[in-house]
Amino acid sequence: MKIVFAQLNLAVGDISNNTKVIINAINRADSEYDADIIIFPELSICSYPPEDLLHRPSFLNEVNNALKEIISSTGEIFVLLGHPQLEENELYNSCSVIKDKKVISRYNKQILPNYSVFDEKRYFVPGNASCLFNIGNTRAAITICEDIWESGPAKQAAEEGAKIIFNLNASPYHVNKLKKRESIIKKRAQENSMPIAYINLIGGQDELVFDGNSMLVDQNGSVVFHAPQFEEGIFQYTFAIGEKSVPINSIECSEEENIYQALCLGVRDYVYKNNFNGVVIGLSGGIDSALTTTIAVDALGAENVEVLIMPSRYTAKMSVDDAFEQANLLGIKSEKISIEPAFSTMLNSLAPRFDGLPEDITEENIQARCRGVLLMALSNKTGKLLLTTGNKSEVAVGYSTLYGDMCGGFSPLKDVWKTMVYKLALWRNRKDIVIPENVINRPPSAELKENQVDQDSLPDYETLDAILEQYIEQDLSPSEIIANGFAEQTVSRIARLVDRNEYKRRQAAPGVRITQRAFGRDRRYPITSGYQEN
Amino acid sequence: MKIVFAQLNLAVGDISNNTKVIINAINRADSEYDADIIIFPELSICSYPPEDLLHRPSFLNEVNNALKEIISSTGEIFVLLGHPQLEENELYNSCSVIKDKKVISRYNKQILPNYSVFDEKRYFVPGNASCLFNIGNTRAAITICEDIWESGPAKQAAEEGAKIIFNLNASPYHVNKLKKRESIIKKRAQENSMPIAYINLIGGQDELVFDGNSMLVDQNGSVVFHAPQFEEGIFQYTFAIGEKSVPINSIECSEEENIYQALCLGVRDYVYKNNFNGVVIGLSGGIDSALTTTIAVDALGAENVEVLIMPSRYTAKMSVDDAFEQANLLGIKSEKISIEPAFSTMLNSLAPRFDGLPEDITEENIQARCRGVLLMALSNKTGKLLLTTGNKSEVAVGYSTLYGDMCGGFSPLKDVWKTMVYKLALWRNRKDIVIPENVINRPPSAELKENQVDQDSLPDYETLDAILEQYIEQDLSPSEIIANGFAEQTVSRIARLVDRNEYKRRQAAPGVRITQRAFGRDRRYPITSGYQEN
Repeated sequence: MKIVFAQLNLAVGDISNNTKVIINAINRADSEYDADIIIFPELSICSYPPEDLLHRPSFLNEVNNALKEIISSTGEIFVLLGHPQLEENELYNSCSVIKDKKVISRYNKQILPNYSVFDEKRYFVPGNASCLFNIGNTRAAITICEDIWESGPAKQAAEEGAKIIFNLNASPYHVNKLKKRESIIKKRAQENSMPIAYINLIGGQDELVFDGNSMLVDQNGSVVFHAPQFEEGIFQYTFAIGEKSVPINSIECSEEENIYQALCLGVRDYVYKNNFNGVVIGLSGGIDSALTTTIAVDALGAENVEVLIMPSRYTAKMSVDDAFEQANLLGIKSEKISIEPAFSTMLNSLAPRFDGLPEDITEENIQARCRGVLLMALSNKTGKLLLTTGNKSEVAVGYSTLYGDMCGGFSPLKDVWKTMVYKLALWRNRKDIVIPENVINRPPSAELKENQVDQDSLPDYETLDAILEQYIEQDLSPSEIIANGFAEQTVSRIARLVDRNEYKRRQAAPGVRITQRAFGRDRRYPITSGYQEN
Repeated sequence: MKIVFAQLNLAVGDISNNTKVIINAINRADSEYDADIIIFPELSICSYPPEDLLHRPSFLNEVNNALKEIISSTGEIFVLLGHPQLEENELYNSCSVIKDKKVISRYNKQILPNYSVFDEKRYFVPGNASCLFNIGNTRAAITICEDIWESGPAKQAAEEGAKIIFNLNASPYHVNKLKKRESIIKKRAQENSMPIAYINLIGGQDELVFDGNSMLVDQNGSVVFHAPQFEEGIFQYTFAIGEKSVPINSIECSEEENIYQALCLGVRDYVYKNNFNGVVIGLSGGIDSALTTTIAVDALGAENVEVLIMPSRYTAKMSVDDAFEQANLLGIKSEKISIEPAFSTMLNSLAPRFDGLPEDITEENIQARCRGVLLMALSNKTGKLLLTTGNKSEVAVGYSTLYGDMCGGFSPLKDVWKTMVYKLALWRNRKDIVIPENVINRPPSAELKENQVDQDSLPDYETLDAILEQYIEQDLSPSEIIANGFAEQTVSRIARLVDRNEYKRRQAAPGVRITQRAFGRDRRYPITSGYQEN
């Protein structure tokens, strides 16, 4: 049996282009590969997740027209295509089996995820039946994504005589997801002594990145075929069910490489799918903007990245020098605009009202907001998207200025802990030096007042990230974290900072989700909350 | 039977204070009212909606401890109390029947809403059984909120012999909700020839406002008792099942009054529950900031509201005069700070980079952003929350500057169409003139360039709102709206503006939901979307 895996970067809502891409893939599977079957990801026609577009009758109507067009373009080879399907006023997450311009059979997803970033029970009704069809003499069955994470649907298919399962997915990336996913597929294959062909979407969609990693696991639970990760393409694999195939090694790459690839794909797709011609970034001489700029260049090319360097009275000369050095290393357009005139003018304008009031965080925020005004002006004037540079540790404790350094349409490091920011910088510099060593080695500082460093008001980042990871990703209480060996006062203060800064996160730009719990659809906390956990 | 309706303003997450308030209400129901039963809203202990706090083991643990404390404080009277309940690793949305320091019985909500602003399937497992108990000789049953919107649970209770249903709610307000709600309760009462006691939460929680409006509907479907709306309190009603009671009229008030009350409660609770000591607002002389300021004064008192008046070269003298006049009418602190120095300085700083490039929207945005910097500085310095003043029509089409006039922690008019903004201003002025007539009668303008008025780039607001309402709240397609009699070009352009500005809304402040479909949890659209509906 020759299977073509259509691991495509389909765009949410772009039904007409997705339809062209799908028809083209079907034609290639037939003419170039002479395949028996081509399999597409979950909800291919509208891509995933379409969210509340699914509530628009015209949207479903257009999907249905696209489906008809695709059906009429099929020939001898089997096509497994994911799409939303309205039947008697109920909406299903479906897969049609199409051949010779006809729908032979249709499967409706049975297990609808409604946790983490998923809201499928908001949209779909679950199916309750398996869907078997014959490819030649082989009895085949279908499951969709979450179906395979529980034992039921695969077992049901096996009991009804299936000899192979095709599993259609839109499974988003996070750190270690591939390992988890592989072990589940292997387990299901072994439980039912049946090969599983796993096809996944690829591409960035708002906060999610789909990593591809389509694969075939044989009846013994060995991976015998693996498509690349973070790469679009049409891949084929030929095998005979029951015959011995050669197990291959799983894709091995470092966590840093993995995350870096995800971030690049997330940035590239956000920028281009939203029709921007490039990005602008405020380059400070600090590590976050240095890494963000490097990612932008790797994702978009140096010619599509421009930076502003915006010193103030509190900016060390070294910061400006390092920023210019990095701009040179990367070969990107850079310009220095001091914020001193704007900062002074703002202070003067406010002087009558602030007369007699002591200096406080206000004056620091004004500096960050002057930079925001300049960066957004450059973004508006050039039509380039402003990237904001905050990392997950900062986003967690609110160590950032709303409408200041939080300005920007996309936030590449939003889900990257500060300790991982350093690891990624070191990893990237190992290929070629693109971030000056100074930037990596200096103690981090917001440079918003005299001699300020982050560790004046925060614990060291190793400690901070360890606490945050337990509080946010593991839902541990402060007392449990303290019991794990962290200082009581520090833990309590950090937990309160996380709680209190929900309002900032609610107005933050979207960013690439790389952990199991990002800030976003993943973690839905009230802003107004009297809860103080001990 | 004497019922006490505890229509309380419970705070999300504030378990310890809610517990005190609940125990106090139980004691009063007993000692002051000598009641047979006191009923509380859905999920009272943690209030509604607690969102992902429900995923924290410590949170559930604390709720459980609070429940024990409340149980141990009960006496002879029946207490119906809503709370999340963990049973064998499954979480239920429950109601405990408590009496004499014991839980007599417990009901688990059967119908879990997972549409609109609701995500209950993310958290809860549905119950499947009714819960009957005897109050003296009367067989009583419980349902929770959504349970009563379908016919099943009430019918099930009736078939098992219930003679009265107690329905616990956390039912958010929107325009016309009360009418819908009453008609459903009446229908259920008639279907089962059984009185229904309906208790609802009151108060603002982020984007939601709970309106109270607790009531008793008798077995004939007549409302015989009605608690006030938007008002916290403990209310009692005594009646005998089967005996004739006197139907009362439903609460009648104008749509304007209704909405205005909801907005005031939403603002008051957001400000005070988040521990701010007041608000600051940019008062422009336009209708939106005029109404926002009036609402703030009515919600918080004049002494807690301060405004900045920030003219530029494009601001008409009339605007400044009108703004000062309104500040005087309302008796609030006001200060004028021209943005000219800041605006000029920003332009100068950018001049080398912008050399040779034509003026465009960039220069308009810089003005709005300079105002944002000044307002946020005042907010930071005073500890007062900045209210942003955009209305739903603007939010829909993106007629606002991100990080400019969109700065602010709360957005009172976010869900109020511009045409309704005018109606509310006129309605409020009928009580006493607080908004200068000029402000209402002048053609609206952003005053960001010479002789600019909103209708240069938008259709008149009657037309705009009619199109938007169909596109956003009714999910009609542009071609359907055109078929309803609107100009093709206008409809297409407006629809594209709505689509394209999702990114702005994603970074917008929360506001009070008053329609059936607000921007927020209610309307979950992808930012990145290739869908263009015709």
